[in-house]
Order: sequence, then structure tokens, then C-alpha cells
Amino acid sequence: MQKLRIGIVGFGTVGAGVADGLIRNGDLISRRTGILPEVTKIADLDITTDRGVELPENVLTTDTADVLDGSEVDVVVELIGGDTTAKEVILRALSNGKPVVTANKALLAKHGEEIFAAAEKSNADIYYEASVGGGIPIIKVMREGLVANNFSEVVGILNGTCNFIFTEMEEKNTEFEEVLAQAQDAGYAEAEPSLDVDGYDTAHKATILASLAYGEWFGMDPVTIEGIRDVTLQDIKYAGQLGYRIKLLAVIKQAKNNVQLRVHPALVPAESLLGNVKGVYNAVWVSGDVIGDTMYYGQGAGRDATASAVIADIMDVGLNLKTGAKGRIPGFQAHSSSAQVVGESQIQTRYYLRLQARNKPGVLAEIAGVLGRYDISIASVTQQESSGETTPVVILSYKAREADVQQALQEIRELDVVSENPMMIRIEDLG
Amino acid sequence: MQKLRIGIVGFGTVGAGVADGLIRNGDLISRRTGILPEVTKIADLDITTDRGVELPENVLTTDTADVLDGSEVDVVVELIGGDTTAKEVILRALSNGKPVVTANKALLAKHGEEIFAAAEKSNADIYYEASVGGGIPIIKVMREGLVANNFSEVVGILNGTCNFIFTEMEEKNTEFEEVLAQAQDAGYAEAEPSLDVDGYDTAHKATILASLAYGEWFGMDPVTIEGIRDVTLQDIKYAGQLGYRIKLLAVIKQAKNNVQLRVHPALVPAESLLGNVKGVYNAVWVSGDVIGDTMYYGQGAGRDATASAVIADIMDVGLNLKTGAKGRIPGFQAHSSSAQVVGESQIQTRYYLRLQARNKPGVLAEIAGVLGRYDISIASVTQQESSGETTPVVILSYKAREADVQQALQEIRELDVVSENPMMIRIEDLG
Repeated sequence: MQKLRIGIVGFGTVGAGVADGLIRNGDLISRRTGILPEVTKIADLDITTDRGVELPENVLTTDTADVLDGSEVDVVVELIGGDTTAKEVILRALSNGKPVVTANKALLAKHGEEIFAAAEKSNADIYYEASVGGGIPIIKVMREGLVANNFSEVVGILNGTCNFIFTEMEEKNTEFEEVLAQAQDAGYAEAEPSLDVDGYDTAHKATILASLAYGEWFGMDPVTIEGIRDVTLQDIKYAGQLGYRIKLLAVIKQAKNNVQLRVHPALVPAESLLGNVKGVYNAVWVSGDVIGDTMYYGQGAGRDATASAVIADIMDVGLNLKTGAKGRIPGFQAHSSSAQVVGESQIQTRYYLRLQARNKPGVLAEIAGVLGRYDISIASVTQQESSGETTPVVILSYKAREADVQQALQEIRELDVVSENPMMIRIEDLG
Repeated sequence: MQKLRIGIVGFGTVGAGVADGLIRNGDLISRRTGILPEVTKIADLDITTDRGVELPENVLTTDTADVLDGSEVDVVVELIGGDTTAKEVILRALSNGKPVVTANKALLAKHGEEIFAAAEKSNADIYYEASVGGGIPIIKVMREGLVANNFSEVVGILNGTCNFIFTEMEEKNTEFEEVLAQAQDAGYAEAEPSLDVDGYDTAHKATILASLAYGEWFGMDPVTIEGIRDVTLQDIKYAGQLGYRIKLLAVIKQAKNNVQLRVHPALVPAESLLGNVKGVYNAVWVSGDVIGDTMYYGQGAGRDATASAVIADIMDVGLNLKTGAKGRIPGFQAHSSSAQVVGESQIQTRYYLRLQARNKPGVLAEIAGVLGRYDISIASVTQQESSGETTPVVILSYKAREADVQQALQEIRELDVVSENPMMIRIEDLG
């Protein structure tokens, strides 16, 4: 049976998961594929810490050259993360003609074009299934399984930490800061949580999915990003009373040549499939003009789930090597250059607005008056339980233009009858 | 750009959908794959009915030989259905060395081994994504995206007609027979509905998924099949009151070398993802030892959704031809021969039991006594609203051995205090 010699750079959590998965299920995988996967080299600065994986002698090395430059490795797996050393590692492997598998979403989001160009130049495969949605094979699905489709929308819950925080806030009746602290203690959230809670990680994944959907590598510039820090327990409760849950979404939509590419918290129907994605799970809702609505669900991160996707990529590379089909699926196949990413001010959707209104007559009339002047129709108003001199008022709008909503909020902010900044959260009705 | 000449046998609904999809999105598909798909021949007995698809002259033919034997076709798409002519068509195409794409679940379920052997002998590809889950790329997901996994369970809602009927029964408060008649009028159900409502279609798909999961082509013999005709509106309501919905499930599970391969109605939690799959939609829940729990959702049938999967297969074949990678993914790769399919009497699960009890003292004690003697613990008992001399009693059990439940029901059936046959529905708690 044909051997596939695997070199891994980065022996952290995911690296250990990949090595472990290949050892545990290597026999099964080889019976399925006709290829015997074997980890021959793992490079890391730390080769002494026990990762709980039993490796043959001479596999571990501190010298990345053993993985990248020698003739002992057929495929290079980059699992360092970050966008400095990881980039050098990948470019060096590619320039040596070695196929690459990576889980590095930040790197691809920022430097995808350069990396794909290098892969094309060397005629070497690059696969990156684990960069989006953890183990969920969403990249394979989108570029192979759904190849026949124009994508009208791709909406994802792509960050397990944020989804865990929202789920905990709702179920444990706890404010954001407290849940975050608990999640940090439990290891579900990083000590420096900004990448997750400020939406950047979701944005990295969103731009990769958007690029695959619309055939142009967008990079990070056109992505609008809002994180979850401003969403209060109050908002989660009010949304719940109205039949919604709040999720951090990546929203990718196309109408004509206009592409929306935005990351922000949103209300989704509690009864919907996306509304029922809880805890650290991820899901991606994909609508195509041929297939209709579809959804893909699974763990968005974690040692083993990520390893499942990395191993699938490794075996795709192996099958390409075995059958002489290098480049069968290019790293990235540009197929359009006409997509215009439009900013949020140009979108139209429904809105959740929470205002803190003073308890005096005529308040609602004043607020409603402003909304009406900007052509924003009110679908429902709920005056919440009062807390002293002011009362929270929650308004759900019908579909409105965001530019109008922003201007209306600007005016409302200046009304005497409203204290505090109004909260605005978009509503996504699909899923 | 490399051309891919496509020949279709069977110009029915799906055939028209495939031709239409290739015409509408052919340009997009060719930019994505570097291959220009072109329908060059379509064979059908009826080449005069207008299917709403504009085809070049000379594409339509009544002679299947034009598709199967000539040199004008690179890939043969079998969309006749059934297991007689379709089988001949596929075997002839393969023996001519032509790769085949088919959506024919019944044929593969019954004659898969013979067909895969023919494909292997001719070194010709055979792909069949559309045979399970309509457009959902579940076959690609299971054998490529999740290649690293031992599958502990695969549980699917695989028949849109049955799911539509259950959804309508619940939402419109209507009995099975009436919903079926309406569905037949609307074209959602066949005039002869047995294939769907008696579970055979689900069983065809279940045995395909089980075979892919466990590496042995099981065929139809070991599949236990129960349809949905006996499920009453009453059952759907009682299940709803207890927090469940009833779905026709394909349940495929493995413990050690024992494989369960069964199709039957089951209670699933209403809050679960599978519980929220409504109408004609399908979903497949897949648990792997590396990836954990995942789910895949989409339309399980219909012209366009099915066409999406067929076109994806066609392009996989095209990429294999382009890169010289024939046989990259074999039609079926056996990878085990040790799986033992166990009958339902050997399973253990939770049960919903509905009995019609006479209104007299001591009834519950008698029933509970029988269950207790067979080691069946009761999780909840609900005495429903009485209707005359008898009262429906709904019992949910804890996990019990099915052999015990069957014997207990046999005894209960003979009790004086129980009129009518008891109803038993299994409970699946995942999803």
C-alpha cells in the first residue's frame, strides 16, 4: 500500500490531535483510502512536554527544516497559527514543491492571495478545511458538493466561544463579563479574548467563505465587524420574550453584484435551526439557487474536531499524489471579479431597538415620530418592566434601510425623553 | 478549456433539472472547475413533451445507444429510476468504460455490489451523491470529509414525504389518511405511496449510508423496516405534550462489531435539531469518534435540489478525467467484513407506549406490574383525557431491552383492562 509521509509543524493542541487521530484510526483510514498515513516528522520548539501521544523515535524535531526541506515528508501540515512564522513555513514548503494542509484562518484571511499564488506557481496543493467551522467539512461542501450553485446567502455561527457565552448568559441568567470570566477559567475562552468576542475570528472565517462563494479573494478590508461585548443579559431576555435568540453571525449575501460581508450580533428566530445551535457548536446556513436552503452543524473548534478536518485534507492530498491529480482542486479558483462589497449603511433588514425612556407622557409618540419620519415601520413595541425613573422600550421594526435607522437613532439619542444610548441589533429571519 | 460531454438517460423531472442547471449555471461551473460541461445527448422514450429546457438540436434521442455506446459522451447520467432498465443502462455504460452518475437509491441498495464490481472491472468511476438526502452532499461528507472517523451513529430523516406528512398532521391537526390524500393531490406524495410511507425509500438510503459508514455493502436483507401508517394524530399530540416530535428515522449505530440498521417512526426531542426539521426537508445526524456530533440539512428531493447533487458528481467525474485520476474515490471501498447487523429484539432504547385502558380501579397497577416483571422502568405515566369507557394511557420508559418490551406488550395485550392493541414507538434522544 502506498505510504503518505506526513510532517507537522506545530505540536500544540491540534497538532497532538492530528497525530493522535492518525495513530488511533490510521488502519481504518488506510483501508478506506488505500493510502497508509504515517507521521514521520513533527517540528516544535518544545519537544519534551508530554502531549499524550505515543510517537516513534526520531519523529520529534526542533528544526522545521527537517519537515520542510528534506525528502522524508510528502505533505506539510502547518499548525502553528498566527501570521508570521506560519506564513514563512507555508511558503517554504510550497516553494519546495510540497503540498500543504493548514488550519490557519487568520493567515489565509490576510495573506491568502500571496499563498495561493505561491501554491499555483509550484503546482503544489494547499488545503484548509479546518480553517472554518472546525471539523464541519464546509469548504469541501461549498466548492465541491455545491459547485452547481450561485450562493444567495451564507450565514454562519462560526465562533464557539461567543456562542458558548450567549448560551450561558441565557441559560444561567448571567451577564457577559461574568460568563467570560468563567469561560476563561474553564479554558473555553482565551485570557486575551478580543480575537473571539470582538468578532475578528468570525471575520477571518467569513471572508474565506465569502471568497469561496463569490470567486474573489476579499481579504479583511471589506468586512464590517462588530463584537458581542455590548449585548446585555437584558437584550437576550427581551429577544427571548419576542421569540428570538441572539447569535454572533457572519452574514454573507449577494444581490446582483452587491455582496454583503458583515459580522455582528443578530436576532434569529428561537425556533429556527440556527437559533437552536447552542454552546460551542458552529453552524453554517447556505442557500444556493439550485439546491435551496441547507445547513451544516458541528463543533467549531477543539483538538479532535479540528483534527478530523485536517486529516481529511491530508488524505485528499494523499489521493491526489496517488492518482497524479495534483491541483485537482486549486487552493483558490478565482471565478469572478465583479462583486462589489457594500457597507452596512446600504443594507436593508429588520431591527431590534432597545431604548431607555423616561416615565412621562408622550414618550412613545416622540420616538415613533422620529422613526416614522425616516420611513421605519414598527412591527412591535414592548414596554418592559420599569426600573425607577426610566423604562426600557423594545421596538422591532419591519424591513428598513440601515442608513435611515442610523440617522433615526442619532435623533432619538438627542431626545430629552431618552436616557442612555439606544441599543440596535439586526434581525436575520432565515434559518 | 476542457469540455465534458454529458449524456443523460431519462428526461424526467430530475433529468430536466440537471439539464436546466447545467445550462443556467454552466458558465459559473466552468469558471470554478476549469471544465466546460455540455449536455450532448439525452435519451428518453418521450422526446416531444416540453420540459421547459432549451436544448440544441440533435441532443434528444429515443435510442439509449446514442448515450451509452457512441463516442459522443464522456459521462453517462442514469436518471430513469427503478431497478431493471436502469441497471442495464449502468452496466452497459460501465462495460463501455464510461463513468456513471446515478441518483438511483433502490438500484444501489439492491444491486450495489454487482454494479461496483462492474465499475472496478472497467476502471470507470461511479458516483451517486443524489441517491441519499437529495442535494445534501452527505455521501461526499461521509467518505471524504469525515474519512478520519469511526462512526458511532448515523441517524437520518431521509424521506421528505413522510416528514411532510408528520409536520402537516401536527400543524393542521389532521389524521394521516387525510394528509396523505392532500399530499397526493398536491403532488408531494405518489398515488401509490407505499415506497415512501411504508419506509422502503428510507431503508434504501439507510443501507447505503450504513455501508459507507461500516465498510460492507449490506444490501436490503438486514434492514428492519416499519412505516408510518400506524402513527395517529393522538400519538403526535401526546408526544408533543411530553416534549417530543415523531419522525421517520433511519437509525444506524455501531457498538463493538454490532451494527443496528433500522427504519421506524421515533420520538425525538422537540427542542433538538432533528426535531426541528420540518416539511419536506431531510437531515442526517452523524457522530464520529474524532469529529463528535455533526448534522447536515437540506431538501431531500425535488427537481433542483437533486440536480445540484447530480451536477456535483458530474463535475467530480470531470475533474477525475481532466487530471487522469479515474478511481480516485472508488464506487464503494469495502473496509470491513466483521460488522454483524443485530435485529431489533437485541437493541436497548427508551419507549413510548400508548394503551387504551378501561376505566376501573387497579388498571395502572396491573400494567405497571407487567412492565416491572420485565425489568422495564417507567419514566412517566400520563393518563390522557377520557373518551367513554376507556382512557388512553401514555407511558415513557427508561432504557429497556426491546425483547423485554415486546414480551411485556404481548402480556399487556391480553389483560382484560386493556382494549385495543398497545402502540409502541421507540425514542431516540440524540439530535
